[in-house]
Amino acid sequence: MNRVGPSMIMDLLKTAAGGGFTSFASGLPDPAMFPAADLATAADRELSSSPAGALQYGAAEGYAPLREWIAEHLKTRGLKATVDHILVTNGSQQALDLAARLLIDAGDLVAVETPTYLAALQTFDSYEARYLPFSRAGTDPDETSLAQALGQSAKSIYLLPTHQNPSGLTWSEGARDAAAALIAKSRCTLIEDDAYFDLRYDGEPQIPVSARLDGAIYTGTFSKTIAPGLRVGYLCASPDLVAKLSCLKQITDLTTGSLTQRIVHRFVTDFDYSAHIASVCDTYRRRRDTMLRALKQSMPAGVSWTHPLGGMFLWLTLPEGQDADALLKEAMQHKIIFVPGQSFHPDGGGTNALRLNFVSEPSHRITAGIELLASLIRDQIGRESHTAGELGA
Amino acid sequence: MNRVGPSMIMDLLKTAAGGGFTSFASGLPDPAMFPAADLATAADRELSSSPAGALQYGAAEGYAPLREWIAEHLKTRGLKATVDHILVTNGSQQALDLAARLLIDAGDLVAVETPTYLAALQTFDSYEARYLPFSRAGTDPDETSLAQALGQSAKSIYLLPTHQNPSGLTWSEGARDAAAALIAKSRCTLIEDDAYFDLRYDGEPQIPVSARLDGAIYTGTFSKTIAPGLRVGYLCASPDLVAKLSCLKQITDLTTGSLTQRIVHRFVTDFDYSAHIASVCDTYRRRRDTMLRALKQSMPAGVSWTHPLGGMFLWLTLPEGQDADALLKEAMQHKIIFVPGQSFHPDGGGTNALRLNFVSEPSHRITAGIELLASLIRDQIGRESHTAGELGA
Repeated sequence: MNRVGPSMIMDLLKTAAGGGFTSFASGLPDPAMFPAADLATAADRELSSSPAGALQYGAAEGYAPLREWIAEHLKTRGLKATVDHILVTNGSQQALDLAARLLIDAGDLVAVETPTYLAALQTFDSYEARYLPFSRAGTDPDETSLAQALGQSAKSIYLLPTHQNPSGLTWSEGARDAAAALIAKSRCTLIEDDAYFDLRYDGEPQIPVSARLDGAIYTGTFSKTIAPGLRVGYLCASPDLVAKLSCLKQITDLTTGSLTQRIVHRFVTDFDYSAHIASVCDTYRRRRDTMLRALKQSMPAGVSWTHPLGGMFLWLTLPEGQDADALLKEAMQHKIIFVPGQSFHPDGGGTNALRLNFVSEPSHRITAGIELLASLIRDQIGRESHTAGELGA
Repeated sequence: MNRVGPSMIMDLLKTAAGGGFTSFASGLPDPAMFPAADLATAADRELSSSPAGALQYGAAEGYAPLREWIAEHLKTRGLKATVDHILVTNGSQQALDLAARLLIDAGDLVAVETPTYLAALQTFDSYEARYLPFSRAGTDPDETSLAQALGQSAKSIYLLPTHQNPSGLTWSEGARDAAAALIAKSRCTLIEDDAYFDLRYDGEPQIPVSARLDGAIYTGTFSKTIAPGLRVGYLCASPDLVAKLSCLKQITDLTTGSLTQRIVHRFVTDFDYSAHIASVCDTYRRRRDTMLRALKQSMPAGVSWTHPLGGMFLWLTLPEGQDADALLKEAMQHKIIFVPGQSFHPDGGGTNALRLNFVSEPSHRITAGIELLASLIRDQIGRESHTAGELGA
C-alpha cells in the first residue's frame, strides 16, 4: 500500500476552500445546477410513502426499480442491459474500485490511455497494477500504440473514450470500432468509464466501446447530471460478473444507501430528467464556449488546447519545456488553481500540460481567470527565453 | 479472490423476502424504530438551507461538523477523540474494509474470537488473511487462548467485545483490561467493532478496549440507532492512521454521501438523540426478554443460550452432535429462518449452534417462532436418539 499518497487535487481544493480562488482545478459540477427542490420533494415522497424501505438495508446489487430504470436507460446507449446486468455503487468511483478489486492482482498489467483519469490510476495503484500506457493521435488513440499495449498481455484495459477526464477528448466512431475489435481479439477485460456520457454539447451521442464487444465492465453515474453528494453510480456487466462484483460490494460496505437510491429513482421517474440534463448542458456548453473564446483571445503563441464536445474539462498544452507545476505556484499567488498534467500520466509525461475545469465557475470568472493565466504563461515563457538568452542558448 | 462466495445470509434473506417468514436470520433493526418523520424534516432542512453543501462532493474524511459531533460523542465512551481522529464511512462495514485494506496483506495472521462477525471474516478473507482463532471461557475470551493467538505474530486482532454479533456476549471489565494489556505488549493492531454500543439493555455501558491502549482502529455506526439505509458509520483512530485510511476511502468511493451525513448530523443535533436511543432500547429490551422467556418455557433439555446485555442477537447451542444446517432446512419448511453457527467460525466450529435475531420481529411472532423452533429441535433430537437406538448405540 506504499504507493497510495494523498491526492494533490484534494490538497489543492482544501487550499482553495480558503476562499477567493478561481478554481479550474476541481472535478466539481456547478452546484447551481443541482435540482435541490425536486430532490427534496423526492426525499419527502420516499420517506413518507416507504419509510421502512428507504431507511432499511437493501440488496447488495441495489434498489431493483432503480436497476431496472438504469438497464432501460442504457439500452438507449446501445448496451444489452437487463436488471441482472446492473450493480448500483457509491458513485462510479466505487464501480471502478470494485472492478479493479476483482480483476487486478499485484503486478498485473493494465493498459491505459495517456493522459487518463487520476483517481482510476490511484485505485489501480492500490492493487499494485503495472501500466501499459498507449498514446493518442489527435482525438483518437494511436492504433499502433494501442495494439502494442494489448499485445503485451494486458489483463485489463481502462478507457474513458467520451469527453475524457482530463483531456476532454472524444473518440471517433472508427476508433471505437477499431478498439473494440482489438480488445475482443485480446484476453483483456475492458473497464469503460462513461461518467460524462450525458454531458454532450455538440453532435450526436456515441455508442460506448462496451456495446461493441462482449464481457466489458461499463461504469456510469448520476453525479454529473443530478448531484455527486448523493453518491449514486452504477456498473453494467454480464450477470456472472455482476454476481461476483456484488459479493465484493457486500464485503466492502454491504449496499449503497437505500434513501439516496430511491431519491434518484424518484427524480428520474417523477420529474423530467431529460429536460434537466438539457438545461445542465445548455449552461455548461456556454461556459465551454466562454473558455474557448477566452483562450483564443488571450493565450500566447505556442500554447494549444483541446475543443471538447462535452464533459467538464479541457486540456491545455504549454510550449515544450514549460513547467505546469511552476505555473501553478505562480497562479496560486494570484488565486487561480488548476491541476498540472503530470498527475494524469502513469509514465511521467504531461509536465507542460494542465487540466482546466470549464463548468464550475461562472462565465465572467472564466474569462478573467483565463486572461490572468495567459499573462502568467506569457511571463513564464518570456522569463525562460530571457534566461536562455542570457545563457547564450 | 476465489474465497469470496455469495453470502448465505443474503441468500436466506432473499428466500424469506417471499413473505410469510418469521425471520430470526437477519441483521436488520426493526424499521418501526426508524425516526422517519424526523429524518424527513432533517433532509428538508439541509436541502433548503444548504443545497450546494448537501449535494456536492465533500471531503474524503467526512462532513466536518459530523466528525466533530462524533468525536465529542466518543469522549463519553472514554476515547481520546478529536475531529482529526474521525473518518466517516458508508456504515461500519466500510470502516472494517478500509482497516483491513490498510493492514492485511495476503497471508497475514489475524486473531479473531470464535464465533465472530461473519462479514468481517468475509472482508478479511478477501485480503487473503489467515486466522488465529481464540476461544471463550463464559462471556469472556479465554485468556490463555488469546495470549497464544497474540503470541503467534498476529498482525491484527479483530474484536467485538460489546453485545457481540453473533453471540450477544459482552466482555467484563477485567477481560477488557487484560486484553488491552496483552495487545499493547504485542505488535498487533487492534480493530474494535463497536456497532452495538448504544443498544444496552442492562447495567452501565462499558469503556471499549480501544480506550485502554494506543493505536487501535475503533469502528461505530448510526445504522443500529438511526437507520442503516443512510449508510453512515465511522472509524476513530490516530490522525496518522486516519490520514492513510482517508486516502484509501478516496480511491474507494471518494467520500461518503454529503446529504446522508448532514441528515444524521441534523438528527443528532436538532432532535433528542438520547431519548430516541432510549426508546429503541426499551422496545428491543422487551423483545429480548420475550425471546428469553419463550426459550426458557419451550426449549428441551440440553439446549442452551446466551443472555445478552444488549445488541440484536443471541446464540443458541444444540446438544453436541445436533446439526443446525439440518434444523434450518426443516425450519424453512415451517417458514422460520435463522443463521446456522458455522458461518461465524473461521475454523469450522459451530455446527450445533445458531444465531437468533431478537429485535426484528414483534413479540407475538417471537414467542410463536421460538415455540415452533423448540418443537422442531425436540423432533430432531428424538429422531436422532431413535436412530442411535436402532443402531444399538
